[in-house]
Amino acid sequence: MFDFRKYRAFEPIRLTDRTWPDQVITQAPGWCSVDLRDGNQALINPMDVAKKTRMFQLLVKLGFKEIEVGFPAASQPDFDFVRALIDNDLIPDDVSVQILTQAREELIARSFDALKGVKKAVVHVYNSTSTVQREQVFGKDREGIKAIAVQGARWVREYAELNPETEWAFQYSPESFTGTEMDYAVEVCNAVIQEWQPETGRRVILNLPATVEMSTPNIYADQIEYFCRSVNHRDQVEISLHTHNDRGCGVAAAELGVMAGADRIEGTLLGNGERTGNMDIVTMGMNLYSQGIDPELDFSDIQEIIEVVEYCTELPVSARHPWAGELVYTAFSGSHQDAIRKSMQYHEKHQLPHWQVAYLPIDPRDIGRDYEAVVRINSQSGKGGVALILERDHNISLPKWMHSEVSQVVQKATESSGAEITSQEIKAIFEQYFVTCNPQWMLEGYDVRTGQSKVAGEFRIPAIKPALYGEGHGIVEAFVNALEKRFGIEIRVTHLDESALSATTDAQAQACIALDVAGHRYCSVTTGEDTSAAVLQGVLTAFARSQLAQQIAA
Amino acid sequence: MFDFRKYRAFEPIRLTDRTWPDQVITQAPGWCSVDLRDGNQALINPMDVAKKTRMFQLLVKLGFKEIEVGFPAASQPDFDFVRALIDNDLIPDDVSVQILTQAREELIARSFDALKGVKKAVVHVYNSTSTVQREQVFGKDREGIKAIAVQGARWVREYAELNPETEWAFQYSPESFTGTEMDYAVEVCNAVIQEWQPETGRRVILNLPATVEMSTPNIYADQIEYFCRSVNHRDQVEISLHTHNDRGCGVAAAELGVMAGADRIEGTLLGNGERTGNMDIVTMGMNLYSQGIDPELDFSDIQEIIEVVEYCTELPVSARHPWAGELVYTAFSGSHQDAIRKSMQYHEKHQLPHWQVAYLPIDPRDIGRDYEAVVRINSQSGKGGVALILERDHNISLPKWMHSEVSQVVQKATESSGAEITSQEIKAIFEQYFVTCNPQWMLEGYDVRTGQSKVAGEFRIPAIKPALYGEGHGIVEAFVNALEKRFGIEIRVTHLDESALSATTDAQAQACIALDVAGHRYCSVTTGEDTSAAVLQGVLTAFARSQLAQQIAA
Repeated sequence: MFDFRKYRAFEPIRLTDRTWPDQVITQAPGWCSVDLRDGNQALINPMDVAKKTRMFQLLVKLGFKEIEVGFPAASQPDFDFVRALIDNDLIPDDVSVQILTQAREELIARSFDALKGVKKAVVHVYNSTSTVQREQVFGKDREGIKAIAVQGARWVREYAELNPETEWAFQYSPESFTGTEMDYAVEVCNAVIQEWQPETGRRVILNLPATVEMSTPNIYADQIEYFCRSVNHRDQVEISLHTHNDRGCGVAAAELGVMAGADRIEGTLLGNGERTGNMDIVTMGMNLYSQGIDPELDFSDIQEIIEVVEYCTELPVSARHPWAGELVYTAFSGSHQDAIRKSMQYHEKHQLPHWQVAYLPIDPRDIGRDYEAVVRINSQSGKGGVALILERDHNISLPKWMHSEVSQVVQKATESSGAEITSQEIKAIFEQYFVTCNPQWMLEGYDVRTGQSKVAGEFRIPAIKPALYGEGHGIVEAFVNALEKRFGIEIRVTHLDESALSATTDAQAQACIALDVAGHRYCSVTTGEDTSAAVLQGVLTAFARSQLAQQIAA
Repeated sequence: MFDFRKYRAFEPIRLTDRTWPDQVITQAPGWCSVDLRDGNQALINPMDVAKKTRMFQLLVKLGFKEIEVGFPAASQPDFDFVRALIDNDLIPDDVSVQILTQAREELIARSFDALKGVKKAVVHVYNSTSTVQREQVFGKDREGIKAIAVQGARWVREYAELNPETEWAFQYSPESFTGTEMDYAVEVCNAVIQEWQPETGRRVILNLPATVEMSTPNIYADQIEYFCRSVNHRDQVEISLHTHNDRGCGVAAAELGVMAGADRIEGTLLGNGERTGNMDIVTMGMNLYSQGIDPELDFSDIQEIIEVVEYCTELPVSARHPWAGELVYTAFSGSHQDAIRKSMQYHEKHQLPHWQVAYLPIDPRDIGRDYEAVVRINSQSGKGGVALILERDHNISLPKWMHSEVSQVVQKATESSGAEITSQEIKAIFEQYFVTCNPQWMLEGYDVRTGQSKVAGEFRIPAIKPALYGEGHGIVEAFVNALEKRFGIEIRVTHLDESALSATTDAQAQACIALDVAGHRYCSVTTGEDTSAAVLQGVLTAFARSQLAQQIAA
C-alpha cells in the first residue's frame, strides 16, 4: 500500500560547523573502477572472460590506476580471471588491481592465492557495520562487529606479510557506513588502522560506502567531514568514497564528499552497478573537465566507452545519460538552436579564450561527438533551427528576414506529419518552395540600354511572349516595370539580398528576394552567373509563384 | 581535442552564512509537471494529440495540480491541444494549466487566445538573463534585458485583465538564471513583481531555472538562498525551481534548493526533457516518500507511469532508473540476498513500526512492484540467494547447513553457463541433486521390533535383494547398521533435520540428511507420510547417491 507513514526520516548528523560548502573541487580525486566487481555482480548475465578482459583493457586505456577486478574468494570465475590477468602479465606496472573479500580467514587466504605473484594490489576487506545489519542480519553488538573488522584486518596483514614480493595496499570498508552511527564508524576504522599501522608507510585506504543512498547528499558530505576530522592518522590514510544512486544523487554525494575531504572515489563507467547503479565516474570526471579541471582520465572517445559498457553489461546507455547519451548534445527548441548558433558565431568571431556557448556545456567534439548534430527539426523548432540546418549541412546562407519565411514552410510540413524531419527533407522543402522554377519561367536573356539616369531593358522569357520591355532607375526596376506593364498589377520588391557564393560552387552569386504582388508576399532564393542574373531570376521566380498561386486560386 | 584548459570553473556565489545545510525537508513542495512542454519539446517525435491526452490524464490521476501544457504561441499543435483541453472540458476544477510564452506581445496575445475560457491558468513568461545570452545572443545590456522582462510582465497583466473570467496566476522565469549575476536576477525579478503586484493577492511565481546545470548542487542552493533572502515581497511570491541534469545532479539541486527556501518544483515524470532531461519528479517524490513525507502525488502504480512515459516519449526507461527501473529491487550478490532475507524475517518477527530492510530502501509492494522478485541467481550469488528462492517460490524450507550444499551445486551450474539462472532452473537443479531417487532405491516397506533399548528392523528395497536387517538404538541407526553390514562400509549420519510440512501438501514430513559414506558426503531432501518414512528414505536416497558416485568413478 502506498503509505508514506511506513517510513521515517534519516537522522542527520547535525554537523553545524561544517566547512565543505565553502570548498570548491580543484583537482581530480584518485579513481578506482569497480566495474569488474560491483558492476559485474549486478548484471543479469555476469561478464565472461572475453568481456572482463575487454573492460579491463578499456579501463587501463582510460588511465585508471586502480581497478577492482573481483571477489575471487566468492566466485570461481573471478578467481580464474584474476589469475589470468597475473599469469598472462596483463596488468601494467603502474596499475594496482584490487580484490574484495569478507573478513573471514578462508576467504582472505583464497584471495591471497588469487593474487599470488601480482606486482601491486589493494586487498579490500569489509564487514557491515550499520545498526540494521548488526541487529537484524548478524545479531551482534558493536564490540562483536568491531572484532570481525579487526580480525579481518589482522589476517589481511598476516597473509600480506607471507607474500612480501607484492607491493600491498590495504583497504577497509565499514559497509553500510551511512547507516552506521558516526562515532562507531570512526571507532571501528581506528581499530582497523591500528592493525595496519599506516604510520609505517603502508598505504591504507578507508572506504566509506553509501551502500544504499539514504539521505540528501549534503548529509553524506556532513558524515564525510565528521569522519575526516575524527579518524586517527588522517594524514596517513586515504579516505575513499563509494556511493550508490538509490535517490538519484550518487554523483552529487561523491562530489560533495570530495569537498568534505575525501581523496578517492570508487565508481563505474556510466554508473553500472547494483540496483540503481554505482557512482558514475564518466559523469563526475566530465563534470570536472567542464570546470577546467584535469579529470586524469581520458574520455576523448566516449563512443568506445559506451560500446564497451553496452557490450559488457548487456544494458543500453540511456539517450539522456549525462555527457554520453545520444541526445545530450541535441537541441530541439527553436530558441535554443538560435542561441547556440549566435553563441558559436560570437565565440568564433571574438576568439574567446574559454568555451561559453549557450546550452552546450562543453564542445562535443572534445569527446568525439559532433556539434554538427546539435539541431534536429520538428514542429517545436523555431526559425533559427531551419536556417542553421541549411547553412550547416547544405551551405545555404540566408538573410535573417528569410529565416521565418523558410521555417514557417518547414513547420507547416512537420506539423502535418507530427514527426521529426531530416536535414535532407528540409532542403527538399526549401528548394520546392523557394528555388524550383518551371523552365518556362527561366530568364532566357536580356538587353539593356543605359542612358542618363534611366535604364531601358528587353527581357526574354519562354512563358511570356512577346519579350517584355520596361524602364527604371536600375535594371531590377526596369524588369519589375516590364512585368507590371504586361500583367497590369502592382509589384514591389520588399527585400533584396545578394551575395557572392563561395568558390566551391559553379554559380557565382545568390539572390534572396521578397516580392509584394498585389498585396501578397512571394519569396525566392536563386543563383546566377553574376549578381544581376541571380537577382533578375529571383524576381522572376517569385513572380512565377504569384502566377501559379493565381492559377491555383482560379 | 580533449583538453580541460578550454573550460573555466563556475564562479560560486560565496554565501558563507548559508543556512540551508541545516534544513531538512519536511513536506512536499508544490509540483508542476512540464512533461507536455519541456519534455515534449525534447523528443525526436513530439507527442501527437493521443499521446498528449494520455499524458495529461495520467498527470491528473497522479495528483498534479499544475501542468504546463505547451507553448501555444510557438506551435500550432500546442495551441490546438490547449484549445481541445478547454473546449472539451478535460481540465478538473482544481487543476491549473500553465502555458509558456516569450515576452513578445503577439505571442502573449496568442497565448491568451489559446487559454480563452479556461478556469484557472498560469501564464509563464520568460526571457534569458545570463551574461552569455545577453552578450552573445541578444546583444543587449542589463537594462535592455530587464526592459524585455518588464514589458512582457506588463502585457501579461494587461491581457489577463481583458479576460477576467479566468483565475490567473503569473509566472516569470529569468531563463538561464544560474548563469546570471545574482544581484541582477533579483533586480529583474523585483521589476517584474512590481508590474504584477502580488500584494494585491494575485498569485505570482518566480521560477529560477538551472537551464543548463553548471555547478555542483550546493552552489545552486546558495543561489536560491541568496535569492530568497533578497527578493522583494518574499512572503507573497512563490519561488519555483526548474533544474536540468547536465551534471547528473538535477534532483540533488532541486532538493538542496528546497532546503534553501523554494516552494515549488517544475519537473517531468522520470526526467524526460531537453538534453540530459529535467528534474525527475518521480525520483524526488519517492525520495520524500522513503523519508516518511507525503509526496502529495500517487506513485502507487509505477508500472503505469513507466508505460505512459515510454509510450509518449518513445524512449525506454533505464533498468537502473531510481525507484522505477526494472533492476532496482533486485539483489544479485549473495551477501545482499542473505541480509535482505534476515532483515525481512526480523521485520516480520519484531513487527517493526517502520520499514528498515537492508538494501531495500522501500517496500517495493508500495508501488506495485514485488519484492518476491528481489533475488536473481547467478554465479556471483551466495548461499542465501538459492535458499531464498527455494523457500519463496517453491515453499521448500531448508536447514541452514544445507544452504551451502545447495548453493554450491547451483553455483557450479551457473559458473559453467555464465548466465543468470531462473527460479525454475534452481528448483530443477535442487531436485536433480537432492530429491530425485531411482525407484529401485525407494524404500518399499519395513518392519521393526523394539525391545529394551534396541530396535531390530527389516528393510525392503527393490535394488537390494534380499531384504536388509540391522539393529540400533533407534530405527535410523538400525537402518544405517543394515546398510553398513550389507555393503561393508562405514556410514555416519552427520546431519539430520526433520520437519512437519504445511497442510497444503500431501506429504506430511520432510527430512534433510547428510551422510558420510566412507569419508564422502552425500545429502538428500525427502518427504514422506510421516517423519520416520521421510528420514529412512532420506538416508536411502543419500546412500543411493554414494553408490551412483562409486559406479561413475569405477
